[in-house]
Amino acid sequence: MKIINNRRSVRKFQSTPIEPEKIEKLLRAGMQAPSANNQQPWEFIIVKDKALKYQVSQTQPYATMAKDAPLVMIVAGNEDRLMSPENMQQDLGACTENILLEAVELGLGATWLGVFPIEVRVKHLQSALEMPENILPYAIIIVGYPLSEDANHYTDRYDESRVHTDTYKHQ
Amino acid sequence: MKIINNRRSVRKFQSTPIEPEKIEKLLRAGMQAPSANNQQPWEFIIVKDKALKYQVSQTQPYATMAKDAPLVMIVAGNEDRLMSPENMQQDLGACTENILLEAVELGLGATWLGVFPIEVRVKHLQSALEMPENILPYAIIIVGYPLSEDANHYTDRYDESRVHTDTYKHQ
Repeated sequence: MKIINNRRSVRKFQSTPIEPEKIEKLLRAGMQAPSANNQQPWEFIIVKDKALKYQVSQTQPYATMAKDAPLVMIVAGNEDRLMSPENMQQDLGACTENILLEAVELGLGATWLGVFPIEVRVKHLQSALEMPENILPYAIIIVGYPLSEDANHYTDRYDESRVHTDTYKHQ
Repeated sequence: MKIINNRRSVRKFQSTPIEPEKIEKLLRAGMQAPSANNQQPWEFIIVKDKALKYQVSQTQPYATMAKDAPLVMIVAGNEDRLMSPENMQQDLGACTENILLEAVELGLGATWLGVFPIEVRVKHLQSALEMPENILPYAIIIVGYPLSEDANHYTDRYDESRVHTDTYKHQ
């Protein structure tokens, strides 16, 4: 599918703000993800305040661009919603991927910055964004209209050697 | 995006086999997922043998339909490829979601059955499919042409209460 093929990590954005309808579409896409026992463990924080965006940008070396990104979104897991705690990371991975794909569909670019389970990053965001202990920040997604027109483009990652038939050993 | 909205867990299939070109498209979609440090930790096992499909169906109570599913695919993590081991589950979550979405795009239906990190399921599949210890079975995906025409259909999961602005506490 074109959207899946063309999604790239996009880090350079125009200053144009993202329309509220598009932000809602990104959130809707995330909430449509499958989850273990349909536990839907997600919470989303849209960071608009400039000082808070700066705080988010200090979470890790690769997050500096969050400071000026038109849209900064935190995907978090809510421990109180977990029926299958061991599947939280998987559910939120599907949720985050849906948001990245929806961004491509909407003509936007995005990058997924990992937070959970690295404790120093988790604690930093919990403190900066007033998240109680049961809310686990999982990923930072930065979004914007790409500076370059072909920021999202096809890169072929197919590797036949990863495909095995019937058993792993006998390819 | 329609594909994201309409994806459902589909468990009842026609007996029609899946065309090899469509199987390749599913694998390609999986390999296009983002991953931490671009580590691409995935391996895929296409289970064709009837006795092995039965073995897979015995992994867990919810996997019984793997016995007769037209396509049974295992998504696994390769420990030797991990630069960020703590992100493996997230990478494979995005990979699995891409495959499920591509299935909808191709007129197929699919269900994601969790394996990792539940040890008894991991060991069972490693043994049945001759996977060495460094290959960690992560998910079983069953795929087929849906029996019902509207198997994939829109269910609205949007929940505004999950969306917070600036900080978690002050909605």
